[in-house]
Amino acid sequence: MPAEGTSFHMTPDEFRSRGHEVVDWIADYYKRIESFSVLAQVEPGEVRASLPAEPPIVGEPFEAILRDFETLILPGVTHWQSPNFFAYFPSNTSAPSILGDLLSSGLGVQGMLWATSPACTELETLVLDWLVRALALPEKFHSTGTGGGVIQDTASSATLCALLAARERATHFESNERGVQRKLCAYASMQAHSAIEKAVRIAGIGADNLRIIEVDEKFAMNSDALAAAMRRDREAESTPFFVCATSGTTSSNAVDPLPQIGPICREFGAWLHVDSAMSGTAALCPEFRHIHDGIEYADSYCFNPHKWMFTNFDCDCFYVADRTALIRTLSILPEYLRNKATESGAVIDYRDWQIPLGRRFRSLKLWFVLRHYGIEGLQFHIREHVRLAQQFAGWICTDARFELAAPAPLNLVCFRLKSGDDANERLLEALNRSGDLHLTHTRLNGRFTLRMCVGQTNTTERHVENAWRRIREEASRL
Amino acid sequence: MPAEGTSFHMTPDEFRSRGHEVVDWIADYYKRIESFSVLAQVEPGEVRASLPAEPPIVGEPFEAILRDFETLILPGVTHWQSPNFFAYFPSNTSAPSILGDLLSSGLGVQGMLWATSPACTELETLVLDWLVRALALPEKFHSTGTGGGVIQDTASSATLCALLAARERATHFESNERGVQRKLCAYASMQAHSAIEKAVRIAGIGADNLRIIEVDEKFAMNSDALAAAMRRDREAESTPFFVCATSGTTSSNAVDPLPQIGPICREFGAWLHVDSAMSGTAALCPEFRHIHDGIEYADSYCFNPHKWMFTNFDCDCFYVADRTALIRTLSILPEYLRNKATESGAVIDYRDWQIPLGRRFRSLKLWFVLRHYGIEGLQFHIREHVRLAQQFAGWICTDARFELAAPAPLNLVCFRLKSGDDANERLLEALNRSGDLHLTHTRLNGRFTLRMCVGQTNTTERHVENAWRRIREEASRL
Repeated sequence: MPAEGTSFHMTPDEFRSRGHEVVDWIADYYKRIESFSVLAQVEPGEVRASLPAEPPIVGEPFEAILRDFETLILPGVTHWQSPNFFAYFPSNTSAPSILGDLLSSGLGVQGMLWATSPACTELETLVLDWLVRALALPEKFHSTGTGGGVIQDTASSATLCALLAARERATHFESNERGVQRKLCAYASMQAHSAIEKAVRIAGIGADNLRIIEVDEKFAMNSDALAAAMRRDREAESTPFFVCATSGTTSSNAVDPLPQIGPICREFGAWLHVDSAMSGTAALCPEFRHIHDGIEYADSYCFNPHKWMFTNFDCDCFYVADRTALIRTLSILPEYLRNKATESGAVIDYRDWQIPLGRRFRSLKLWFVLRHYGIEGLQFHIREHVRLAQQFAGWICTDARFELAAPAPLNLVCFRLKSGDDANERLLEALNRSGDLHLTHTRLNGRFTLRMCVGQTNTTERHVENAWRRIREEASRL
Repeated sequence: MPAEGTSFHMTPDEFRSRGHEVVDWIADYYKRIESFSVLAQVEPGEVRASLPAEPPIVGEPFEAILRDFETLILPGVTHWQSPNFFAYFPSNTSAPSILGDLLSSGLGVQGMLWATSPACTELETLVLDWLVRALALPEKFHSTGTGGGVIQDTASSATLCALLAARERATHFESNERGVQRKLCAYASMQAHSAIEKAVRIAGIGADNLRIIEVDEKFAMNSDALAAAMRRDREAESTPFFVCATSGTTSSNAVDPLPQIGPICREFGAWLHVDSAMSGTAALCPEFRHIHDGIEYADSYCFNPHKWMFTNFDCDCFYVADRTALIRTLSILPEYLRNKATESGAVIDYRDWQIPLGRRFRSLKLWFVLRHYGIEGLQFHIREHVRLAQQFAGWICTDARFELAAPAPLNLVCFRLKSGDDANERLLEALNRSGDLHLTHTRLNGRFTLRMCVGQTNTTERHVENAWRRIREEASRL
């Protein structure tokens, strides 16, 4: 037994020297990151089997922990920050973001209420207002009007919050109290994110009441089909209450036609949520803002700086045009959280804008990113990613074995060998197994399709050229 | 316009030197943390007004960002990591946790699927299994059986996931598809966390179908009243489907009687969720494990290492006895997430265990904490916090002006002046305004009550003694 007066904590000076070691590890990691297989090449259970089955009774030296991290954990890591990572959507980061997040960990404040750390709330509101201007979003999303923004963990959670606020608005704020009692119908295209179905289930609406709307040849929602579905439901005495449009779908980056969808939502009194999780960042550049045409119809909107804006996961920016509807939906005020600032009405308590109660100081990393890069720096890198993706799409068109599978409006290129699903599956498998790059797939019109998304912070022309060389090589070997 | 070939990114070596600066800032912060007012002394809008209303167009030097952080942000921060912070429940952290989290930021992996970073999933499963043993939880929560654990952001989200799995089990997995169609009733004590009401609303059950069960003189759930309420609902053709018991309530740390509640839940076929968000950590010590008596009846359980186990927010450990029910409730598998490992069934995809899709590598910080301290080191500090709180409770009993407002089973002491609500409100206000310490309040039996929770990592005898001295001083001045 340790003697009384003992402490097992690191002193601040021990933290200082260990902290320098960890920072050095990260700096060196980024220098050697291209030496790793992008996709971890381990079998299920391999990492776990290398670690003790029981927790240590006695504390261990920091060197031992860091050594095991390097030798046992790292081989099981897929390197999302490798410039050769082109899979899924990016979850990129940057040095200023890592450092802002480190300060957040160091402060360890919990921003559930304004009163529990005023700066945590006020910086978040400010930075989200900055982004309204930087992305040229409608003024109604700015906190000085009727709406405002909040950081959510993910677009999935933002979608759920939007859907819940819509559910309450449609039921005159009664579902919260009495449960879901009438038939409510939600709408999204067949290319929308799976988070919508998840949200519809969670909210007690039921997946059967989610109408999956067909898409046009560009994989964008067919707005006539939307209007027809809403009309059918209303005639059947259901309430069309929620439409999720996507500006940049996960499969192919398709942009649903908001200028057509918006007026239909207005006609039916349905809440319009716009999910621009990955592509929203592009609106930093005026020439890409067409992806948001019609955004003025949206009741809510989200995009993820943790995808393409150099900010660590988790950081989804969620905006509502009417914050009252959201707060009324999610607010609970037990005695132990009562305080004068909340009761004055002069402050925002972000606990009422989200599912969880607690919250981290996430705006710090976003503030660090915006200040380090400036809008100009962000624009530069976004333009460069789009340029590289467009160049890649051009190369696809020059090789007769390949074809584009969908338009490539920004930084995602969907392509395939013309020789069928089996060849494309084998091509993907060979590329990922090589460790030289990481791509993932989708199905478009039922056909197996490769996705190449250019968005990792440090991806440059060399990496995209190399990817194309490796794709052609492996295609030749099939 | 920047020239092509420009980069706005920090190089790894710039990151190295800036990273050292940030680590040094944090080390120094912990050295001077007692010099700050624990509660931020700013007015609403003050922090925001000190910052530019528009985002910077041109990037700024890192020194400028760090300087503004120190001079403009820090004054608006409530110092949750001050050893003089006794408010709410703690949200403590520690040096190993900060460093583990820094590595997580540096790696920037996204662990939504096993395949997206196998180590992220496997370390999480392992560490949660370690904690089953360390807290002597039932074997059914261990991943080698039918159940398993997952890291959620907060206990609120864990409660919601438990309630959703319970909803689906009770409706034979139909609510997800068809919506909530029959009357389901949930139960929690009047002292349970507000997260339950929030979850009941979100899930489409409706707050009217949450039965608030009365408590005994120790503020613990009256199990006879629970049984009677469930019987009444069943007779009224409702389905009692979910009971949330609390082991350590937020107001007063009361422990609901699981040995009585458990058999009642079995009789009615209701899911029993046990919320031990703060107090669960105490079960590291055999002498405190009585807080979990009856835990073998639980279908799910959670506790928060981010409260009292020296691990950065967010980190809630959520366990289920039957992982199939949870996964069947929350699983969605779109084509773009399909992969061989998932289809083999040999791996866990934690995306199916939570509301969001994406997830950070949160087990790293927990692994760092467990390895640095060892079970022995954690036990030492938990025992010390409990000893200090018990000593404080003893002091309360020796001063005739004060009384204990509830039993103090662990590290939370609820107390008040005998002279009425007004005096207690003024006492709390004076203490918090002084900046010397931070306490919050609750109401017990309708009376305004101060809460003193000993749980910040670096709180020692000196801090608790000083708090008691300040409390007596301010009480004398009233």
